[in-house]
Amino acid sequence: MLSKNKIKYIQSLHQKKQRDELQLFVAEGDKIVQTILQQKPGLIHSIYALQNWQFANRNLLKNTEVIIVTNDELQRLSAMQTPNQVLCVAHIKSAEVQENPSQQWVLALDGIQDPGNLGTIIRLADWFGIKEIICNIGTVDCYNPKVIQSTMGSFTQVNICYCDLHNYIQSHKNVKIYAALLDGQNVARMQLNTQNGIIVIGNEGNGITQSIIDLCNTPISIKGKGKAESLNAAIATGIILSHLVK
Amino acid sequence: MLSKNKIKYIQSLHQKKQRDELQLFVAEGDKIVQTILQQKPGLIHSIYALQNWQFANRNLLKNTEVIIVTNDELQRLSAMQTPNQVLCVAHIKSAEVQENPSQQWVLALDGIQDPGNLGTIIRLADWFGIKEIICNIGTVDCYNPKVIQSTMGSFTQVNICYCDLHNYIQSHKNVKIYAALLDGQNVARMQLNTQNGIIVIGNEGNGITQSIIDLCNTPISIKGKGKAESLNAAIATGIILSHLVK
Repeated sequence: MLSKNKIKYIQSLHQKKQRDELQLFVAEGDKIVQTILQQKPGLIHSIYALQNWQFANRNLLKNTEVIIVTNDELQRLSAMQTPNQVLCVAHIKSAEVQENPSQQWVLALDGIQDPGNLGTIIRLADWFGIKEIICNIGTVDCYNPKVIQSTMGSFTQVNICYCDLHNYIQSHKNVKIYAALLDGQNVARMQLNTQNGIIVIGNEGNGITQSIIDLCNTPISIKGKGKAESLNAAIATGIILSHLVK
Repeated sequence: MLSKNKIKYIQSLHQKKQRDELQLFVAEGDKIVQTILQQKPGLIHSIYALQNWQFANRNLLKNTEVIIVTNDELQRLSAMQTPNQVLCVAHIKSAEVQENPSQQWVLALDGIQDPGNLGTIIRLADWFGIKEIICNIGTVDCYNPKVIQSTMGSFTQVNICYCDLHNYIQSHKNVKIYAALLDGQNVARMQLNTQNGIIVIGNEGNGITQSIIDLCNTPISIKGKGKAESLNAAIATGIILSHLVK
């Protein structure tokens, strides 16, 4: 049986402040824990699972220790409405800028607030082979349980850094900086001859900060024909990546 | 003050069975009710709003009657965790197939389950000027409160029909039928010379029903490079529409 202190300690990781202090986060669910075990086993700090899950995953687990919990205990540990057999506590990797946008695509996010959107964007970056996401301070924490959930495990494949996006872009003014705006070039008709640069996606409601727009040299748009006024940030990211990243 | 019966009656519309019986549904929130008032005022059956909302929207409302409710009452009527000033009860339009895929694009959905995905897909159809969505029986009800919420009002612009998708496609075998599959032609590199046809999107987990795949003459795919195993159905729809619908 789990002690009250242990339960409190895991619940506390649902809060950013505690995650920052302990450099740990919680990842939940069968698929996500399996992905970490397969792709980044070194991240795992501890696993809490139902007995059945441990048995079903014995080959993947090898000698990794599992703390067996009851359904009730899992419910208390979980940030989800319907917990799913297993959760793990994992180490936060210290994320420093790794890729150079003069050689690679880098995705830059300015103030994405919705955890589901950020998770979906991380999954999209992984899908299109983008290795680095730079988040402006003010973007939701990528270790938020809902973000981790929506990545479907892709957070293990993408380096995610938080920094002052304005400074970052200013120090890379020599590359193409694509900004998703309302009045840019139609992304569906662009002829690209490069496979590098920075793609900037703005906040769901307010778009990209003006001082960052001022640094962008290649405004792009997704042209619509109907009466819908906007697209959600994750949808816009998917469409833009599918046209730019070949 | 609202009677208990009135509250029960509106709450009952959060259930599909009642919506089908009464041919009414609930649409919530400032933006969505405003969109209905602007674009399809004839759909409105009754409006329940905070006093402030009525005052702020008096020009849009003209002579439309509003039933003033308190915050507490709105909370009880609403299907949302955080209700937003106003909800309306609206008439379900009887949806019959209107567009012909030999002249227009038609979007066909096979068993989309997630209300947020269906709502986002309706918003995407509106964005790209698609006027008709055909849903296979088994697709989540488009008048589900979460679907209506996620459309951001776009449900007023798109005709949505539920029918046997296999029969529908079989009766349109003369047009291009694009199916989103894992091993189709790369949609980002297709050269299209038509602007009509049926685009089929499958269920989030299981894809498209085999008997429907068998009828599709143009398999398409979104090619990825990373380790992500799939894209969410709404994201896939956005990417595919952005490449096919010009």
